[in-house]
Parts: sequence; C-alpha cells; structure tokens
Amino acid sequence: MLLQPLADLVSIFAKKGITDVILSPGSRCAPISLAFIRHPKVHARTISDERAAAFIALGIAQQQERPVVLVCTSGSAAYNYAPAVAEAFFQQIPLIIITADRPAEWIDQWDGQTIRQSKIYGNHVKASFDFPDDFSHQDKIWHSHRISNEAAFIANQFPEGPVHINVPLREPFYPEEGEKYDFDKPIREIGTVATHFTLPDETKEKFKVKLSNYKRILIVPGQQKPDKELAQILNRLAETKRAVVVADTISNLQSEHTINFHDHFISIAELQNDLRPDLIISFGKSIISKGLKLFLRKSQAQHWHIQPGGYFPDTYQLLNKAIHCHPVKFLECTEKHISSEKAFAEAWSTANTKVSAHLGPLISNTEFGEYKSIATCLHLLPTEAKLHLANSMAVRYVNFLGERSQEIICNRGTSGIDGSNSTAVGCTFTTKDPVVLITGDLAFFYDRNAFWHNYTMPNLRIILLNNHAGGIFRLIDGPAKQPELEEFFETHQRLDASFLAKEFGFDYSLATDETSLESGLKTFFTKSIKPKIIEIKSESPKNAEILKRIKNDIAGLF
Amino acid sequence: MLLQPLADLVSIFAKKGITDVILSPGSRCAPISLAFIRHPKVHARTISDERAAAFIALGIAQQQERPVVLVCTSGSAAYNYAPAVAEAFFQQIPLIIITADRPAEWIDQWDGQTIRQSKIYGNHVKASFDFPDDFSHQDKIWHSHRISNEAAFIANQFPEGPVHINVPLREPFYPEEGEKYDFDKPIREIGTVATHFTLPDETKEKFKVKLSNYKRILIVPGQQKPDKELAQILNRLAETKRAVVVADTISNLQSEHTINFHDHFISIAELQNDLRPDLIISFGKSIISKGLKLFLRKSQAQHWHIQPGGYFPDTYQLLNKAIHCHPVKFLECTEKHISSEKAFAEAWSTANTKVSAHLGPLISNTEFGEYKSIATCLHLLPTEAKLHLANSMAVRYVNFLGERSQEIICNRGTSGIDGSNSTAVGCTFTTKDPVVLITGDLAFFYDRNAFWHNYTMPNLRIILLNNHAGGIFRLIDGPAKQPELEEFFETHQRLDASFLAKEFGFDYSLATDETSLESGLKTFFTKSIKPKIIEIKSESPKNAEILKRIKNDIAGLF
Repeated sequence: MLLQPLADLVSIFAKKGITDVILSPGSRCAPISLAFIRHPKVHARTISDERAAAFIALGIAQQQERPVVLVCTSGSAAYNYAPAVAEAFFQQIPLIIITADRPAEWIDQWDGQTIRQSKIYGNHVKASFDFPDDFSHQDKIWHSHRISNEAAFIANQFPEGPVHINVPLREPFYPEEGEKYDFDKPIREIGTVATHFTLPDETKEKFKVKLSNYKRILIVPGQQKPDKELAQILNRLAETKRAVVVADTISNLQSEHTINFHDHFISIAELQNDLRPDLIISFGKSIISKGLKLFLRKSQAQHWHIQPGGYFPDTYQLLNKAIHCHPVKFLECTEKHISSEKAFAEAWSTANTKVSAHLGPLISNTEFGEYKSIATCLHLLPTEAKLHLANSMAVRYVNFLGERSQEIICNRGTSGIDGSNSTAVGCTFTTKDPVVLITGDLAFFYDRNAFWHNYTMPNLRIILLNNHAGGIFRLIDGPAKQPELEEFFETHQRLDASFLAKEFGFDYSLATDETSLESGLKTFFTKSIKPKIIEIKSESPKNAEILKRIKNDIAGLF
Repeated sequence: MLLQPLADLVSIFAKKGITDVILSPGSRCAPISLAFIRHPKVHARTISDERAAAFIALGIAQQQERPVVLVCTSGSAAYNYAPAVAEAFFQQIPLIIITADRPAEWIDQWDGQTIRQSKIYGNHVKASFDFPDDFSHQDKIWHSHRISNEAAFIANQFPEGPVHINVPLREPFYPEEGEKYDFDKPIREIGTVATHFTLPDETKEKFKVKLSNYKRILIVPGQQKPDKELAQILNRLAETKRAVVVADTISNLQSEHTINFHDHFISIAELQNDLRPDLIISFGKSIISKGLKLFLRKSQAQHWHIQPGGYFPDTYQLLNKAIHCHPVKFLECTEKHISSEKAFAEAWSTANTKVSAHLGPLISNTEFGEYKSIATCLHLLPTEAKLHLANSMAVRYVNFLGERSQEIICNRGTSGIDGSNSTAVGCTFTTKDPVVLITGDLAFFYDRNAFWHNYTMPNLRIILLNNHAGGIFRLIDGPAKQPELEEFFETHQRLDASFLAKEFGFDYSLATDETSLESGLKTFFTKSIKPKIIEIKSESPKNAEILKRIKNDIAGLF
C-alpha cells in the first residue's frame, strides 16, 4: 500500500527544484525509494556503500548548489552517512537525509536493523524531523507536508547544510499490483521569497567612515565557490593596491593580483612587521594555511567578518565585527573607501613576486617526487576542469603552487581524508568537463568504494600520489622524531592502484620518474570512455627532504 | 609535553585487565596513542580506516569478553566508528572509544578536523565522558582518574557496551627528547566486586509453584556466547522432553535434542495448534527467525524473559515477567519443576525430525547453488573453527541447516551488512583456530577495507557467495514484483574477488560447480601462511528458485 504523503514529499521537493537523489538498497526504505525513482523529474541513482553514497550526494550538491536527497534503510545504514553529514554541515552543503525506520513502538524490541535513529546526527544537522507514522488524522498529513516544505527550505537557507527526516514505516512496503504513485494530487505550495542580505544605508555610511581609519587592509577570503562578481571587486582592490588580498587556493578567488604564495613567506620573521595589517576583512569559510592563521592571530589587527548569517567563528581571536551581509553587497558600497599605505601593499607583493619568480625554477631543478609531479600535472590541467583535492597533502601542495584558474573543491569542512573519491565521483554526475582529483594513497584507498557502482564516469581523472604512507606525518617534527613514526603515524601501506584499476575498469598508468610521468600525461586529459588513473610513486622521506629543501631555499631569498 | 593523566588512564585500564587497543593514525591523538603503544601490557595495532578499525575492535572484544579500546584523531574519524558503536551497543559488546579533540574554545572556529564531538554517539553508548583539558587544579586529575575507572567499569558491567571518552588536547602532542611516560606512578585503585545475579529464596519458591501451571513450555534462547553450563541444563530439559528448546543458530545452544529446524515448519498452518506454547521462557538477545517471531506473537502464551539487568524488550508482545537474574541461576533452581505435556514436546520433535531426515537428501539432489554449497562447506568445517556469518542471507542459510557445534558469530545487534569482514579479522587476532566467514558479495565488498593493514591473518578463511547482487530482495515478494528489482533492490554489482585476493595477497579459488567447489575445498581448511578465499559463483534467480522449491518440498511433508 502506497502512502500518499511520501508521494507528496517527492512532489514538494521536485517543485522546489530538487532533481537528484542517491538511494542505497533496502526493503524498509522501498516506499520512499520507489516514490523518488518513479517521479518523472527526479534522477535516482543507487550506491550500495552508504558512506560513499553520502559523499557522492555531497559532490553533486557542491556543484548544483541545491539540496541532494539521500535515502537509506533502517539500522546502521544511517550511521554510515554520518561522516559526510558532518562534512556537509561544516562545508555548508545542502543535503536532505531520509532514513527509513520502524515505528517508535518497535525501537529497542530486538527486531532486525533497528537502532535509535531519531536525531541520530546530533549537532551536525540544521534540523531533524520525525515524519508521522500514521495518517488517520488530517493534521498528520498537514504535518508531513510541513516537514517536506521545511526540510527543503532549511537545507537551502544560508548557511546551507544537511537536514534529516526520519521516516517510520510499517509493512507492506511495496505497491500492490496496479497501484501507482499520484504525483499530481494538488498540494498547497509554499513559495519562498529570498532576502537580499544587504546593509541599511546608514550602516553603509558608517563603514565608509570607519574604513578611513585603516591603512593596512588585508582581505582574507575563506573557502567558497567561484564568484565572478566578488572576484572582480577583489581584483580591482588588489590591482590598485588599495587592499592586499591573500587567497588560499580553496578560496577560488585567486588572480594575478592576489597574494597566492603567502604560505612560503608568511612565517619569515624579518617580514612580520612589514606585512602586519591593521584591519582584516574576511568572508567565506576556512583557510588552509596554518602559517597565515598564526600570523594573523599575532597581528593585533581589527577583524571584520562578513557573512549573511549563521554562527561567526573567531578564527584569528581578533573578531570585532560580525557583519550580516553578502560580501559583494558590502564591498560594492565600501570599495571606494578602502585604501592602504603603499609600503604595506608593496611588502606583500614584493614577497609574493619573489617566491613566484623563484619557485618555478627551484621545482624544475629538483629531482622527481610529489612536488615536481604535481607542478607538472597542474601545468597540463585543462582550464575547464573541476579540480578536487584530497586532504591532507594534496591540497597543501596545490596551495604552495600559486594561482589556479580551475574551480578548486576540497572537503575542508571537517578536513577528513574519508570521502574525497566519492565527492569527485558525485561531481562527474553533474558535468561533462574533466573532473580531476589529486589525492594521496591513504585518502584514495580509504574511500575506494566510491567506485563500486554501475554508473559511468568517463570524465574522471585521478592523480594518485602513492608514497605508501601518510606522508604528512614525516613533515611534522613531533612524529618524525618518534620511533613509532613508520608503524603508527605514517602507517605504511603496501597497496598500489593497479589491481583496483583493473577491478573497476579504469585506464591506468604508472609514473616512477619524469619520463614515465610525461608519457602517462600525454593522453591523460584526452576524452575517453573509461576513467583514468595515473599513479605517481615516490618515497616519503625523499618528498619530505625536497619540501624542506625548497622551503629553506625560499627562506634564503629573504 | 606528556600528560600524566593519559599515562594514568592506560595504567588504570591495564590494571583492569584491558589488553588490546586499535589505533587509527592522526596527530592530535598522538599523546593518547603513544601512551597505549608504550605501555608494556597493552597490545596496540593500527588500522587506517576507522570504520573497519571499530569493527575489528568489536571482533576482538566479542572473543575476549573484556573491553577493547579504540583511539582516533579529531574530526570525522569519530563518525566512521559510529556503525560499529551502534552494533556494539545492541550486541552488548564492551568497547571504550577514545576520540582526541580540540579544547572546547576551539570548536566551531573553523580550525581543521574539528567537529562537535562531545556526546557524538548519542543514544548508542552506555556513557559519554568529557576528559578535562587542564590539570592545574588537583580535582581535575581526580576527575580524569574517575573517568578512566568509570569508563572501564561501565563498559564491562551487564549489559556490556560501548563507552565514549572525548579527550581535548592542546599542542605539543609529542614527547620531548628523553621524556617518558610514567606508568608506575601510584594511583588509587578501585577494585570491582561483582554481583551474582541470582534470586531471593522466596522468589525461587514462588516460581517453582508458578511453573506447575504450565504444560507447554517453550524455551527460546536468543543470541549469546557459548555457555556450557546453560547448554547442559537445556539439553537435559530437551532430552527429557520437559520443555521444548527452540534454538536459532546464533544462540550457540543447539544440540541433538534442541529444535534446530523450526524455520522450515514454524509457519505451516496445520501445525500451529500442536506447537502452541502456554509459557515462553527466553534469555539472550535477538533471534533470527521471522517465522518464529510471528508464531510466538500469535501464541497467546505467557512470556518470561530472564536477564540480569538493562532494558527488557517485548519482542513477542507478550512479556509478563522481567526476571532480573542469570538464566543459569534461574534454571538451576527451577529445572525440576519444569514439565510439559508429552504431546506438545512430541509435536515439535516430530516436525523437527521430519525436516532433519528429508532436508539432507533434498539438498543433495538439488543443483549447484548457494544452498548446496553452504551445506558442503559446513560439512567440512573444522569443529574448533569460529564461524562468522554475514547478514543477510549467509546467517539465514546456516540457520536453515540445523545443528552446529562451532561457535557462531554474527552482528545481529543492528543486523547491518557493514562490518562482517572486519569482525572476522578482529577474531583472527584472538585465536589460532580457523576463523571462517561465510558472506555474500554485498557485505564482502562493502567492508573490504577490513583487509587494509599490515597484520597477518593466516587462519582467516572466507567463503564468498557471489551472486553479484543482494539476493535477499529476490526472495521477498514485494521487491521481486517491482520493475526496479535489479537496479534498485538487488543492486546488481559486477565485482568478483579475484583482484582483491591478488591485491591483498590471499589464496583464491573459484567454484562454479560441484567439482570446482570440492576441489577448492580440499585444501581450504589446511594451515597456511596466507588467508584464503573461496568464491562460489551462482545466479541469484536460480538460488531463489532452489530455496523456494526446497521450502515447498518440506511443506509437502506436513
């Protein structure tokens, strides 16, 4: 017997523009899954490993910028979504997680696949709903419509994020013969009229005046999607040196005028004074550079953070103003009132240019390893590619290497290594452009179930940096000095990707030196039917040595 | 700088008999991990995928029947433990989960690998502690000792289960040169004096009297570890026909006198009246047989459930008495007062014997497929083996096939498919006896990261039933009739295990008919250096047909 409120839920979602659902197999969730599968405007895919399924949904939602729905059966399935739910919460990606459940009276009665699902994601969802389990009273149908509307609305409202609907269901789960979902039943629609996230005129005026007090203005965008309007404003400010814009690669706001090589020089003692801002203006989410964070925390500057709403982090322990506004709206009206001392802007650009001029030759002259290989790969990267970066070293290397024109995607909400393959796979479902993932071996093998499904991913390209270990631990002084380094910190692992490539039908090439890398890259970005992996093998101690040497060489410039 | 309270935590655990810890790599957790690694009485292993790590810990704890410790770094790592935490909670397996965290003031400040970890496992842990992040006041050290003692105590107390300690840590994470953990510092020990879980004499007397009112007594043990004392009492009761003992395979209480083939005849309409009990006595956890559950719910019997404490489920919607006692203690004193009508006991044993006599020949005469293959494998299974069964079909097939002398292990707490490989891997760390896992392809590939580590598992044997799908869905009428059966319910998957076997260095053989199965099994259980997989390939529709046919043939006997 079909439940009309479930058909209504899908109809409401579809009316709100939701197009994609990732299902995982199960019987209790069948009435929900079938409603999504059979709705003419929803694209349903099925992924067996719920952990991968949730990161794939996240990868789709990152691109579409609208909620993607997840549906799983009752029991531990819901908990396998949890890592991606936390990532979505902190990265502010809209997801609607629908978990099938037994009705409340059957919880804790030792029936199969029954756990305590209500509010299971704790503080990592924006809202958590319990769908009615009985529709005998008219208000219950109204309640189910309320939940369907609110879930879509809350997931999509700034800051976007995951929303959970737990749906208790009784048998029978399957439609009887001839029984059909009615998606055309009239339902009252609740249209959404969006706000503008701008400031009152008198506040704008106050900020124009306030800005005249600052002469060393540093703009620090955090992680965000590419934003052309914002990029143009920042570029004007940076080009005219009225502000210094320090852009991590995940900000998607780098240009030739922004400071992109800060990670190389921000910790150099001699520069601290010249680089010190008196005002930090930030927006977007987190930044990668630990050096930049530490520098800013010591700067004693004022700090204004701009975002339309949500909680305001105090990343630099300096926050003075929480400005509830869209950054473009703020900068549009204040741009002309932002100005900095020439010496301040020049200190930054001189340092940046120095690194920019020397880094290329330094890398060219160094031996084969991760640093050089990534530089080579990035050089050949098609402009239209979506570039996914895994935690932890891949994103750091790319951040060292300066301006990128491609969209950069990295799960910096929780900065875990757990879902980067799946996120890239989700991205391939949204575009025909190349989706390129640079990843280390730990992140890659951790999430190998990303590929365990029946959908084609012809535009997926994986650059796998295999040093058979978590190389980052060798770069931190603490673990590098412990006798337990290799077993318990680097966790040496022996796999390479050749079997995986065969198993999943990927094109595969192995690079162990510059010649094999160049040869492998020749056709790597050309179109194909299959996904491609290029596995770059290098030694963890060697990579650490190269990184250290280049760091020292750069420091020697100052 | 080392924190003495962390060394104390490990010392307290070691004094309480905890011997095993599973670590996952990370930097923030380093001070905790190093304390475990360096303690002379603790065996530390490292597993990179936290989801697998937690199920491996569960597999060890299942065997050792004492808490196993898990240690992970901050961020989403903790959530990857969650599926195993839920399983441990409902299966009542003691685990102590230690998650490293940033101090509270750094939560929500957009620092890397920072989520809201406090109480992250919600209602799926027995207790959740926040370790102090500062020890400047003497009471904080006392608090840390309180937590360490209580965590071990609560995890180990009936019903055993998972306990969470969240440990906020500040840099530096690593010992300075020459700095050592002091495990010999005197700490006040809190010894535990255990209770006996028995009943007052006058209550015993009352039960002796009460029992005389019942003449159709059915004893239904749920999932539990093998228990010789209990098995002897039940065997006496069953042999003398004073009670009927219906034993699912996961009860580990089957004998030649217990009813083991109930799943074949319990739903047959003609038998309902003769089999109907007037008293159900149960203990242990869940049962597998859905048929038995439905039969009991309709029985209108009285139901007494015996367990020392914890919540009392009402699985059959008939519970009258929640008896807080150990089942052995209860049966020891009441055994002589339990008696049943001859006709009742004989109705059960006749039906059971009928199936027992016919099932073997029926399976022998059927064509190659999962049913017959499992029977063949079980026939050759060494008596001393630990037999792990995955959800969902593997455990059901074994339950159909009658008495087993081996210990049966199956994650029936949540009945998920998510950690059966890892649980078996954990078991191999506790015994030199063969650890045999029977699993389907979905469960097997779901949890393939179980094998991604550097520890040997020479005694691991995997019998993989690969029908390239979730075959159970074809056996349920509902999904079998939907046009979406293959894509969205069975979720056809194309992998086989040959690449995986090569990748992880397992011995591998493929069985596609009786000859290749017999040939593969010849040396399958002999000792080896490597783990072995035998992959049994069959067709999902064929398996469904065989199962249906045998079911009908059996029904035809009545």
